[in-house]
Amino acid sequence: MSDLSVGSLDRPRITYEDRERLHGHGGALVWFTGLSGSGKSTIANAVDHTLYTQQRHSVILDGDVVRTGLCNDLGFSPNDRMENIRRIGEVGRLFAQTGTIALVAVIAPYGASRDAVRKAMRPGRFIEVHVDAPLSVCEARDPKGLYKKARAGIIKNFTGLDAPYEVPIEPELRLDTSVLSPDEAAAKVIAVLQSRELI
Amino acid sequence: MSDLSVGSLDRPRITYEDRERLHGHGGALVWFTGLSGSGKSTIANAVDHTLYTQQRHSVILDGDVVRTGLCNDLGFSPNDRMENIRRIGEVGRLFAQTGTIALVAVIAPYGASRDAVRKAMRPGRFIEVHVDAPLSVCEARDPKGLYKKARAGIIKNFTGLDAPYEVPIEPELRLDTSVLSPDEAAAKVIAVLQSRELI
Repeated sequence: MSDLSVGSLDRPRITYEDRERLHGHGGALVWFTGLSGSGKSTIANAVDHTLYTQQRHSVILDGDVVRTGLCNDLGFSPNDRMENIRRIGEVGRLFAQTGTIALVAVIAPYGASRDAVRKAMRPGRFIEVHVDAPLSVCEARDPKGLYKKARAGIIKNFTGLDAPYEVPIEPELRLDTSVLSPDEAAAKVIAVLQSRELI
Repeated sequence: MSDLSVGSLDRPRITYEDRERLHGHGGALVWFTGLSGSGKSTIANAVDHTLYTQQRHSVILDGDVVRTGLCNDLGFSPNDRMENIRRIGEVGRLFAQTGTIALVAVIAPYGASRDAVRKAMRPGRFIEVHVDAPLSVCEARDPKGLYKKARAGIIKNFTGLDAPYEVPIEPELRLDTSVLSPDEAAAKVIAVLQSRELI
């Protein structure tokens, strides 16, 4: 927020460096992208628990939750999905700028949308995690019963069935959740944050 | 975020109480509402400095900054202004839920919009601060040259001139910035946070 000076403020803005110093760690935006049922929220939650135990400040921005609030005016058309990703990206960026580690668990099916969020972040602060599991595995899990509804035609434009999912080309991490446990997957995310010296 | 359970997460969500314990203080949304030039951003910035000195975690959500990001698709029609306030309210609520003190410096001319944000917050966590100064004082300050442009007809629908500002009926605080210095005003905001035992 420190890059825009607005009117006279008497004192300069507190910078993101100041806030990170106060937090004792860096801010970042970790985006868990993947099909419904791939395990995005579960891994984000496991990472959140680990960070909490380490006294790091984090937040989970979950697609289902955000859609009941910030994005409750949006549907699932391509344009609305892009706007959904854009807004969540902006909120994640705001959190990252205050030194918080934002854990975004949102399908985000379009590569261009994810890349736009990456470009808006400071270098190294966007961590794209492809939560990857075969469609058949995601559909067998079907934790919210959404695949069943989509197959029955009750839900239209369902990612992976009748709407596309663009696989990340160069994600920071690819986690095959048909093999890895949530804790194993979370440990790999923590390792990326450590390797970037954010925590 | 802990009120919505989404699929199976293995472990329960970290709650806002957990996050506030980690921060060592409560989360809140302080909304500075008032005319352009009334001193909203200046006071928010002074409060931010005080909180930072006390090692509290805060964030400034400034109208001008948010409009370059989260709300860059919105104009200044009544509907767009309402949507602007709604989104900023949602973001402020997310910050407050993580135990951060969100300082929102946004005109927010409509009482109904501000009340909707208040209703979405936990009781006592919304603090409405009417940054009040006579229009003539705000116009004489004109820190961004906006009144000049509005008087010249270059800017339309300018709050206080050809667009309405609905004065808060029962704000937590009213600060007459034609009398109070920014530091005096900030001290009053800090006192409200203390009286609510948030800090």
